[in-house]
Amino acid sequence: MNQRQDLHASAVATAIGELRALLGERLSTNKGAREHHGKDESSLAPAAPEAVAFPRSTEEVRDIVNICRRHGMPLIPFGAGTSVEGQVLAVRGGLSLDMSRMNRVLAVHEADLDASVEAGVTRRQLNEAIRHTGLFFPIDPGADATLGGMAATRASGTNAVRYGTMRENVLALTVVLADGRIIRTARRARKSSAGYDLTRLFVGSEGTLGVITEVTVRLHAMQEAMSAAVCRFPTMADAVNTVIQSIQSGIPIARSEFLCQTTIRAINAYSKSSHPEEPHLFFEFHGTAEGVKEQAELVQAIAATNSGSGFQWASHTEERNQLWQARHDAYFACLQLRPGSRAMATDVCVPLSRLTECIVATQGDVAAHGATIPIFGHVGDGNFHCVVLLDPEDPKDMARAHAFNRRLVERALVMEGSCTGEHGIGLGKRQYLRAELGEAVDLMREVKRLLDPGDLMNPGKVFMPD
Amino acid sequence: MNQRQDLHASAVATAIGELRALLGERLSTNKGAREHHGKDESSLAPAAPEAVAFPRSTEEVRDIVNICRRHGMPLIPFGAGTSVEGQVLAVRGGLSLDMSRMNRVLAVHEADLDASVEAGVTRRQLNEAIRHTGLFFPIDPGADATLGGMAATRASGTNAVRYGTMRENVLALTVVLADGRIIRTARRARKSSAGYDLTRLFVGSEGTLGVITEVTVRLHAMQEAMSAAVCRFPTMADAVNTVIQSIQSGIPIARSEFLCQTTIRAINAYSKSSHPEEPHLFFEFHGTAEGVKEQAELVQAIAATNSGSGFQWASHTEERNQLWQARHDAYFACLQLRPGSRAMATDVCVPLSRLTECIVATQGDVAAHGATIPIFGHVGDGNFHCVVLLDPEDPKDMARAHAFNRRLVERALVMEGSCTGEHGIGLGKRQYLRAELGEAVDLMREVKRLLDPGDLMNPGKVFMPD
Repeated sequence: MNQRQDLHASAVATAIGELRALLGERLSTNKGAREHHGKDESSLAPAAPEAVAFPRSTEEVRDIVNICRRHGMPLIPFGAGTSVEGQVLAVRGGLSLDMSRMNRVLAVHEADLDASVEAGVTRRQLNEAIRHTGLFFPIDPGADATLGGMAATRASGTNAVRYGTMRENVLALTVVLADGRIIRTARRARKSSAGYDLTRLFVGSEGTLGVITEVTVRLHAMQEAMSAAVCRFPTMADAVNTVIQSIQSGIPIARSEFLCQTTIRAINAYSKSSHPEEPHLFFEFHGTAEGVKEQAELVQAIAATNSGSGFQWASHTEERNQLWQARHDAYFACLQLRPGSRAMATDVCVPLSRLTECIVATQGDVAAHGATIPIFGHVGDGNFHCVVLLDPEDPKDMARAHAFNRRLVERALVMEGSCTGEHGIGLGKRQYLRAELGEAVDLMREVKRLLDPGDLMNPGKVFMPD
Repeated sequence: MNQRQDLHASAVATAIGELRALLGERLSTNKGAREHHGKDESSLAPAAPEAVAFPRSTEEVRDIVNICRRHGMPLIPFGAGTSVEGQVLAVRGGLSLDMSRMNRVLAVHEADLDASVEAGVTRRQLNEAIRHTGLFFPIDPGADATLGGMAATRASGTNAVRYGTMRENVLALTVVLADGRIIRTARRARKSSAGYDLTRLFVGSEGTLGVITEVTVRLHAMQEAMSAAVCRFPTMADAVNTVIQSIQSGIPIARSEFLCQTTIRAINAYSKSSHPEEPHLFFEFHGTAEGVKEQAELVQAIAATNSGSGFQWASHTEERNQLWQARHDAYFACLQLRPGSRAMATDVCVPLSRLTECIVATQGDVAAHGATIPIFGHVGDGNFHCVVLLDPEDPKDMARAHAFNRRLVERALVMEGSCTGEHGIGLGKRQYLRAELGEAVDLMREVKRLLDPGDLMNPGKVFMPD
């Protein structure tokens, strides 16, 4: 151990001592806890933090941030650990800030259609808490992520085509800055033109600009009727074109999910269902009973012109939930296609007009790749996922996966798309950020340096090392 | 003239010389042009710039920014001059950057539901350009503002309750930074989790962080049926409650505008209409023919329980346009209530549950004020306007108007609302920003200093002087 490492180790030990004095049992250096907090759903090599803190309030987070800053200890917010680009990995060591004890629903304002929660509240917990109100929180990334984590990665999911993403649904945030200041980014008004949009600056900042401790979100009125449908198609292009044409016709589809035949096979095996092994669309329509019927008929007609068949309804809550559960299980179902494997779950987003071409070309890549890569996603937004199954211990597997991912991203960028629609940059997409946004990345780095001059807030994420 | 002023005058003269060499006739120091660019729709004292530039490209804007920076000359972007909080006033002199010659529609991507325009394109011009596509751009602040100006003030308007504000509808921006860098904030994908949300940082920045030169916006499909309705109520509270209950029921109202009896009187006189002089709601419904009918029936039933009467339809385009033209003319109609007057057009936004109470209390203030102050606005968002008619030359009038505005804003803040829903801070609301957002304002100032260390980008706006 050289002198510099020595100094670091000593600073970390001092920091941990101060954190223990502050938090008592809510500071853990236990190996199990550290390992749990050093990995996420990605196939990236785990990186354990030196300790894990379980704060209970914004003020406690502030005190933790102050201790970490004084001792140069990195700090990595941790929600449910469901990130897929390595966002929670402690690549430079430091403290994992587990938000799970900040899980109070602070206020539900039914009449205002909003709710304020601590950052550790999960989306299911929130929906459970407001079930009696006739309102719901629509953002649904599949996993039962925390609201803080979802805000930090600008998450979205199946409902985004109608209800927007975290960008559109966060009204205000409480954030602890790197220097210990606590700010509230906005009031509860549904609109405001007062000053810079700090809310949106922190939504999607992946813990690199500060720690989100409270989130105020918009809620939406449950519709009188919610009805789901499935439909299958001979080719991916037919399925995708059906969605694009529906959107372009102005039909307010609430969900429109594409699943390739491989995904269908995985779901059938995992959920004991029996969908024919062909490309499928899963739809959901929200509105009045009459309106929902009308929407579905219009979409069914569009599907028919694209060789869609087997249009099936699921209007009862139970059938509907079953269908969406199957969709949500797609990721885990796909993992079972190759037992014991991990996945590189990558996503891109392209303008709607290029989506069919992008998916068809990706399908060609999958064929050339020769391995199992299910494709599914939120085609109404131009956003889809590829789940590259792999063995992280096999360098050849990893190299092939990276090459596939690179081709996918480069194709999306050529099509004026984004290297990630909803997973974020984390570690896995850092190398593509400049290709996507050019000199704008310099400005992002300047903002990062302004807010976190010591580079302690989730360091190593979003940007490539200098 | 002291030495410092002398130096300044000499620097400005040099800058103007360089600008003239760059722009030729597109640089004006003509008194008429300077005076025109030194005022907006507010009642604030005009402040003329020292010159006016008419750039034709982003690169030209960059060259202008570089000249201004070298000589310490402030630079104020100017769209259509329709701001209402003094945003375009050259309070520290400098150069007005008139964007009217950057008025090309660069691309309409029908299939992607987006369009890219130069910042000087107005919303009507854009809608005219896409009329054949079956798409429309919904944001509608009344005035025929430029897209650049609307982005800069985070504008919204009558359709925001359904289609969102500029915050939700800008996909990407091209911005010239104070140091001359040109950045593109995002690609054209409808969703992205790639890096910090620079788009939203510039939306609402009121020209203080850089010059917006190009705007890519979302377009929306025209609905099969668009139908408008009017309804009157015995009290303001009844009208406002009708909208709140409709929103809470999940009815996807496209527009819901409240107009007080004074506003109705003004509109009747201005537009030769004959609405009874009572509080009114103007509605619009978008959807399928069947869906629109259903929405309207639901709203009509809610109105009836709130003593609404005289529910009238306007389903033909012409009637509909007439109705909304009257609404859009409200501001100018109100000015005619006191011929020769100017107006302090102020707006606040509160959570829906407080809106009725807020408007009723404001009505009390209007009665106490003893002068004519029409109230109208976008009640579906919790956002309303008060048009305080005044003579800017009369100090008593001005003092009373400021006192009224202060009470209005303070009431909104107590109700967890915002000091401005859509007009922006400009000069007129600077004194309220800290009361609304506390220490978050310090972070905004730090961002301002980072991006504009010389304080040359629309200086004096948004923040109180140090």
